[in-house]
Amino acid sequence: MRMRAQRKSDWAMTEAINKIKPDVRGLKAYTLSADRASIKINQNENPWGAPERIRQETLAQMDARPWSRYPDFVPVKLQQRLADFANWTAKGVIAGNGSNELIQAVLMVTISTGKRVLICEPTFALYRQITTVLGGEIIVAPMKQDLTFDAAAINDAVRRFAPDVTIICSPNNPTGQTIADEDLARCLHAASGLVVIDEAYHEFAAHSVAPLLCEHQNLIVLRTFSKAMALAGLRIGYLLASPVLTNEIRKALLPYNLNTFSQTAAEVAVDNYDRELRPLVTRIVDERDRLFDELSQVKGLEPLPSKANFMIVRSSINPKSVFEELLRRDILVRDVSSYPMLQRYFRVTVGRTDENDRLLAALREIYKR
Amino acid sequence: MRMRAQRKSDWAMTEAINKIKPDVRGLKAYTLSADRASIKINQNENPWGAPERIRQETLAQMDARPWSRYPDFVPVKLQQRLADFANWTAKGVIAGNGSNELIQAVLMVTISTGKRVLICEPTFALYRQITTVLGGEIIVAPMKQDLTFDAAAINDAVRRFAPDVTIICSPNNPTGQTIADEDLARCLHAASGLVVIDEAYHEFAAHSVAPLLCEHQNLIVLRTFSKAMALAGLRIGYLLASPVLTNEIRKALLPYNLNTFSQTAAEVAVDNYDRELRPLVTRIVDERDRLFDELSQVKGLEPLPSKANFMIVRSSINPKSVFEELLRRDILVRDVSSYPMLQRYFRVTVGRTDENDRLLAALREIYKR
Repeated sequence: MRMRAQRKSDWAMTEAINKIKPDVRGLKAYTLSADRASIKINQNENPWGAPERIRQETLAQMDARPWSRYPDFVPVKLQQRLADFANWTAKGVIAGNGSNELIQAVLMVTISTGKRVLICEPTFALYRQITTVLGGEIIVAPMKQDLTFDAAAINDAVRRFAPDVTIICSPNNPTGQTIADEDLARCLHAASGLVVIDEAYHEFAAHSVAPLLCEHQNLIVLRTFSKAMALAGLRIGYLLASPVLTNEIRKALLPYNLNTFSQTAAEVAVDNYDRELRPLVTRIVDERDRLFDELSQVKGLEPLPSKANFMIVRSSINPKSVFEELLRRDILVRDVSSYPMLQRYFRVTVGRTDENDRLLAALREIYKR
Repeated sequence: MRMRAQRKSDWAMTEAINKIKPDVRGLKAYTLSADRASIKINQNENPWGAPERIRQETLAQMDARPWSRYPDFVPVKLQQRLADFANWTAKGVIAGNGSNELIQAVLMVTISTGKRVLICEPTFALYRQITTVLGGEIIVAPMKQDLTFDAAAINDAVRRFAPDVTIICSPNNPTGQTIADEDLARCLHAASGLVVIDEAYHEFAAHSVAPLLCEHQNLIVLRTFSKAMALAGLRIGYLLASPVLTNEIRKALLPYNLNTFSQTAAEVAVDNYDRELRPLVTRIVDERDRLFDELSQVKGLEPLPSKANFMIVRSSINPKSVFEELLRRDILVRDVSSYPMLQRYFRVTVGRTDENDRLLAALREIYKR
């Protein structure tokens, strides 16, 4: 009797797992090394932390709010603040639980088996991951040999494959390169599908493609509070697009996707951007340029110019050993050597001045030998 | 020239909107009336609020944490706490941004065009909504005329349609009825697909199906912090299933889906459940039974017995008028009259004692006429 139950159970397991789509079963989960270090420059976070004024104002507001009540069904106040901030209409703004959730929503309402998504690799791994879960097909327009965007390849792919969605990360993670506005405009004209620009790092480039929204109704712009806004722990992102599109994308979002605390913090952060956050962006950009110059002078290292708060560095030593050597010195960088075209690279986030100094000292030591 | 640009733009819009899947375009967005009232008994929230000890401990912990850093990639500490709390293995636990996100993840890894989801209506509207976005087909095993679960109809549908996923909400929203363990076990045996039990309200029934997890590897249990746990504003849910299944379901979850603040609050709430939250559940259950008795005595009203923190009430007056009459008296209930089989019903959440008294007084007044 027990054996029969056991057999039934095994059978049930086989049956159960068979109900998972084969594409999903074949997928490796998105993971991250669990390494820790005092100098954490592996996730492009804002190294200065969330400003105290933003933290205290958020905590005070949360102390005065009911936590047992659902958040607003439509976060009207936050949407209006984000609209003013981005100079776009509130009806064309969606706030989400990180911009990841918004990428997912865009793909959910557009992609099913046989649909095509064009991306430029190397880039953020999640675009491919979500597309695959949804049964879509990935088309790649690779970067040029110098790791800049290949506008001709993008346009060619747009015409040949008519992708349902094109996703361009600009400044691109992990290369730090941007696509030129005129190249993007050409792509928007040529595309019959939607074009998503993930501008998670736009503050560090002092440039946004949002002004193109008026003219191009197939453009979707994604932004995040995890980088310049210094709130990665709170998971806040937003999307800008034509209201006709946002109405549809909203249908794939779960009700109450953004919790009360993160909504509150986002409002406070926007209100305090000029005073508290913009100066941090300036500091990071200055440090980025200094770091680039100093890295360029280390023999064996070749940093790629970047418009973001990170850069990839070409290394004469195997990047995996560099990762380990740095970790031994309590510095955590990102090993990107498994990305297409980046076998020789590692990625560093621009840290605080003291952190960058320690990184430079460590690298000088490693490459001296 | 301007006219040509205009025409190009119209065309682009038509093209853009055509990229949205037809199933999605045909869908009405999940919405909720924006009405407000001092007595808010429309969303099955915990009327006693999050206990002060939980609030203050959470705020203190957040004051000591960096907000600019991403949350833990895997929230190991919370998973272990939830596992202990639910008496299940930590490897078989997934925490999410509300249980809605977990329903979505389960459906994302299983449902695509042509796949089938069995639900028992009337029930929570989101199951149908997400299935439709994913191109799946909904099969319905309706409740019996008395609004209890129809185990025979469920089993019949499981055999005839071999649904890839069956979703049963128990206690069911909005009817408050539960499915008997033996009926569920029969369904689990008969099903070749996955069976999801959404037990968002299980604390009020003093019953969980989690003990069936050991024996049935096709069972998935969903829970939430939005009801008994009094944290609806923070969007926390969790899923219990065989680790073989959770490994796959995790692939559809976005990295860092649960923000640092909600993670912290969830840990604190679990630690304080027995001392702070369980007594509130007892109070709500007592009030539910009193409310049921008193409503039964109002001529024109017929409440349905419920195992949850709400109940539906059959009304001799058009429920839409009752909703309006109550709103005029500053009481917000849920109009469920558009749900299948519930044309004559409205739903009330069990409030605090004073709130229930005011509801009863208002209803006595309305039904006296």
